[in-house]
Order: sequence, then structure tokens, then C-alpha cells
Amino acid sequence: MAKPNHAFLAACRREHSSYTPVWLMRQAGRYMEEYRKLRAQYDFLELCKKPDLAAEITITPVERLGVDAAILFADILLVLEPMGVGLEYSKNGGPVIHHPVRSGKDVDNLKDFDPQQELSFVYDAVKKISKTLKNKVPLIGFAGAPFTLASYLIEGGGSRNYVHTKKLFYGTPEAWKRLMERLAKVVAEYLNCQIAAGAEAVQLFDSWAGCLTPTDYEQFVLPYTKAVIDAITPGVPVIHFSTGTAGLLKQIRAAGGDVIGLDWRVNLDEGWGMLGHDVAVQGNLDPVALFASPKDIKARVADVLRRADGRPGHIFNLGHGVLPETPVDHVIAMVDAVHEMSSR
Amino acid sequence: MAKPNHAFLAACRREHSSYTPVWLMRQAGRYMEEYRKLRAQYDFLELCKKPDLAAEITITPVERLGVDAAILFADILLVLEPMGVGLEYSKNGGPVIHHPVRSGKDVDNLKDFDPQQELSFVYDAVKKISKTLKNKVPLIGFAGAPFTLASYLIEGGGSRNYVHTKKLFYGTPEAWKRLMERLAKVVAEYLNCQIAAGAEAVQLFDSWAGCLTPTDYEQFVLPYTKAVIDAITPGVPVIHFSTGTAGLLKQIRAAGGDVIGLDWRVNLDEGWGMLGHDVAVQGNLDPVALFASPKDIKARVADVLRRADGRPGHIFNLGHGVLPETPVDHVIAMVDAVHEMSSR
Repeated sequence: MAKPNHAFLAACRREHSSYTPVWLMRQAGRYMEEYRKLRAQYDFLELCKKPDLAAEITITPVERLGVDAAILFADILLVLEPMGVGLEYSKNGGPVIHHPVRSGKDVDNLKDFDPQQELSFVYDAVKKISKTLKNKVPLIGFAGAPFTLASYLIEGGGSRNYVHTKKLFYGTPEAWKRLMERLAKVVAEYLNCQIAAGAEAVQLFDSWAGCLTPTDYEQFVLPYTKAVIDAITPGVPVIHFSTGTAGLLKQIRAAGGDVIGLDWRVNLDEGWGMLGHDVAVQGNLDPVALFASPKDIKARVADVLRRADGRPGHIFNLGHGVLPETPVDHVIAMVDAVHEMSSR
Repeated sequence: MAKPNHAFLAACRREHSSYTPVWLMRQAGRYMEEYRKLRAQYDFLELCKKPDLAAEITITPVERLGVDAAILFADILLVLEPMGVGLEYSKNGGPVIHHPVRSGKDVDNLKDFDPQQELSFVYDAVKKISKTLKNKVPLIGFAGAPFTLASYLIEGGGSRNYVHTKKLFYGTPEAWKRLMERLAKVVAEYLNCQIAAGAEAVQLFDSWAGCLTPTDYEQFVLPYTKAVIDAITPGVPVIHFSTGTAGLLKQIRAAGGDVIGLDWRVNLDEGWGMLGHDVAVQGNLDPVALFASPKDIKARVADVLRRADGRPGHIFNLGHGVLPETPVDHVIAMVDAVHEMSSR
């Protein structure tokens, strides 16, 4: 049987396709009634750990929205749980880590674990999803990038200024190095297991890299992100995602990735120009734009497409995840607008 | 009597000076014991409204740190109080606006007021400070830029995603225009009154502009910021400050200002190159860098100075305000390092 011509995978490889592929970060999320119903019944971690439910959550938006890729339902912090740091998803706030890492000793006390064994529920979900999707659209696996994971481990949750994280690399660069090396190793293994189970592309989320100076990024982040990307199963496209990094694009590019995420704080044409056209890009509608009228959404989609200029290698996406209050019909209007207006 | 040769004012005008001037945003703030003692006795708004205390708070760090400019102790939201929106500084959290603006009707219901009369306590403080400083260092006046003020008015406080703000300009652009025109007028008058009272330069804080797409900035923000800057008393330097705007520098520059603020998320040489060397710049040490060791701070100061390359028109500063837990002796080490290493 011939493999269908997936616009998403073509764009990852900067090949021509008959339209611009589109998917959304957090396309399976709280803005969807189907998801809210499941969340009323189950804990967030339970949903992640039950492959049947994770698969259902992954597939629902593909059918509902008509997007060109599925993304595994999971969480970037799952890899931290087996490290013994006391990960908890609080009811209303974000995730909490009860034993944050603040010293070299804390780094050395992190539990070693085998990502293949201890995160097997993720690969079970991947297998189920792949089977159900039957090649309809590709499945994207994902993981947090070492820096973003480290910042959660060190801050103990979300952060505004990342003071503890930066203090650790300023004051104890050797401890920082050991932490980042361990995270890079775990993340690469975790992603390769997802690929072995059926993920056809992977996205590395370095969501908080935008808090860094370019010099600190080069010294304390780039080598470890690069180590992850270099270790990914050859031939599988890697999307390298970050936000707030308009001043860091050269460094993000140097860390690697077949596709570089651009957020809405930079014009797509200018961002792509800075990265170079020998790499694909993903983005870059403002997630808040989905609160505008469908007519306005269409105009904003048109602007992004105009800046991409029909160049092969553009995956349409938001600059960050769908916000919880977003109207579902506006998301559908966006997806339809991308398909209609980019049809070649 | 000849006016002393102020390095700060020289840099605003891109003239040569014998060293690089330095001051810090929030140099009078919670990281200082003197300030914490006063805050234990008085409300934040009380401190702003008592010219003697505001003057004392303004001058203390000048003496303590040896910086090259004083900045008025006040708050960007003071101009919102006479509009009748119920401004309150909550004990531990940030400011709250009890009657946020969410519609054209809310915009029209904002109270008109005369900034010269109703904010006279600010100009009284400016006069006292100018008298006490006796030309030792220049005094910087300041105000919030129309967008940042509008976002507080609309969100009702701080925000993560600025959904209400963006919804207002997406959905009711005419109401947005009326709001921004009113804010621009008030802000320009307020700054010119500060100048009339003795402020020798002014800084416009567009702290949250970094949440915008370049296109939205051009359409919904730039004209109003430009209107403020164009209305400032001729000859008085304007510093145009924002954060997270590495992808917006062209637009920030087009809005105006003699000095453009750069935050740490872009290398100073690259940011200055994008702005053009026919404008001065201010920045751009990461505020968190002050938690590093004095030796590391010195190395980071050296890197910023190296990127400024001795070019006239660089004011050394952090990329945003001093954080509350910052060690005072580290701040002093930073100021000394700037003076020592930039001495020409």
C-alpha cells in the first residue's frame, strides 16, 4: 500500500505539498468540551497514564478540527516523575515539584531510571494512536527540552524570573552540566522510544528559553539541546519549539531541528529570514487572535500565509498553545482558512 | 555657574562622555533596606503622594549606589486613579483595578481630569528632588506608555495573555482608538508637567508591548506612543522602554524616542544594529545576573560594554527593574564595574 502524501511530513522536509499543513499546540485541551468531560472524571496524570484515554484525547481534535497532524496527549513533565522529585499537578494551579533541585547534591540525588521501562504507558498510547489513525495523519511525539525541564526541576514549578535556575548555572556550572547531561540523555531516549512505537515526527518544547540572554543560551543550553537533537533516530523530523526568542534565533537554529518554531512576536518572513531558508518553520499566529471574529481570524491567517510566500517548509500553527477559553468554532475557522487560502 | 557635564544627558544626546553612565530601573525599591523600612510604615500610594518621602526614596539610591541619574519615585498607574477605575495596590499581589474597562461605554465613562491639578503631588516631589540634588545628577521623570496603561485598565491588573486587551482592539477598534487617544493626551501632559517641575529627561515605560505581534503594534500602539513622544517639551530626551521586543525593534524605533531600551533577550550590538546607530540605547544586563558573584557580574558588565564598543549613546542599565531579593552590594559592584571598565 502506498503511503499517503502527508502535507505535514512534506513541510518538515521542505518538500512541496498541495496546501500548507496546520495543527495546533494543545489542540487537545481544556477549550474542548470532550476534554473537559474527561478531566471531570480523571486526574490529569491518570489521563496521561491510561493509554486508551490518552489515545482518545489525541484523536478527538484530529477528527473535530481537520488538522494535518495528531500530537500525543501527554505532558513534558512526565519524565521528571521517575526522578523522585515529587511531581504533582495541583487542582487549579500548574504543576508543583515538592523537592526542587537547588544544588549539586540535589542533582546527584536524582533517581536514575530507564525511560523505556518507566514511561511505557506513553509508548502504549503511541501504539494505540498509530493503529487508530491508520496513517490518516502523522503522529507527533514530544518532550520538554533540557532547559525547560531543568527550570521546572529547579524552580519547583512555573516561574516569572527563573532566579533559582540562573543562580544554579551562574554559581555551580558543574552541577548544571551534570543536570543538563542527564536530562538530555533521558529526553533523547524517551523520544526515540516514542518513535519506535510509531511517532513520525517529534517536537522538542523549550518553552521558557526566551528568558535567557543569547550568551547564556549558547553556554548553558545549546550544547544539551543539540545533544538531544543529534541523538534522534535518523530520518525523523525534529521540530524545535520556543517562545519569546526573537533575539535568540541564530542560537536556536544552531542547536538544531528540521523545523524551527516562531512565535507571533516576530513577523514570520523576518524570522524565517533570520533563521535562513534552508530550514522549515512552524507558526506563527498569536493564540489570542482566535478570540477575534472569524473574519478577522481569516485576515490574520492570510497575513501569515502571505509572509510564508508559498515557500515549501511552512507548517501553520499558533505561536504557543490554544488558550482554555478559545471558542472551538474559531479554531475550526482558522484550520479551514489555512487550507482554503493555501491551496495550490 | 556652569552646568556640570552629565554623562547621562550626554549619552541621551549621543555625545561623548568620559565614562558610560549607569542607573537602574527600580533602583529605589524593595531590595533596599531603607525602602523596606519606609514601606513598613506607609502604604505604597501614601509614599507616592507624600512629596517629602517620595523625594527621600528617590535620592537614597543615588547616594548609596553612585548612579548617574535619579529616577522619580512614583508608579505608572498613578494617572489611572483620577479616571475613577478603583485603583488599589493590594498588600502582597500587584495593583488591582476594581472597575476594568471592557467596552466602548466603559471607555466613555472614564473620568476626564486635569493632570496638572490632580497629580500635583508628583510635581511637588520633582521640585523637592531637583532642589536637593542641586544638579549633582539629572532627574528622570516617567510615565507608562498608552498601551501598557490600557492593558492594566482593561485586564484589571497584571496579565499573562492580555486576552481582554486584544479582544478590545480586535472587536471594537473605535473604542480602542478613543481610549488610546485619551491616554496619550494624559501621559504627554503628565510628562510635560514633570519636565516643567524639573525633570531633565523622561522615560516612557511600555513594559508589556512585548506581547504584541509587530502588525498589531503598528496599528494599535505605535500611533499613540508616537503622539506622546512628539508632544514632549522639545529638547528633553525621551527614553522609550519595553521588554520582550527583540522582534519589534523596527516598530519601537518608528514610534520614537532619543534612547531605546534593549532588554537582555537580545545581544546589545545586534539590537543596536537593528535600531540603527543614529539613536541611543539603554541596557541591557539581565536583572537576574545581579544574583551571580561580583566576579561574574563584572564579566557580564564587560560583555555588555564590549558590545557597546565605546560608541557614544549607551546608557548602562538592566533590561528591566531590580528584583526584590537582589543583594545591594552586588548592585554597587555592578555600578562600580561600569564606571571602572568604561572609563575613557
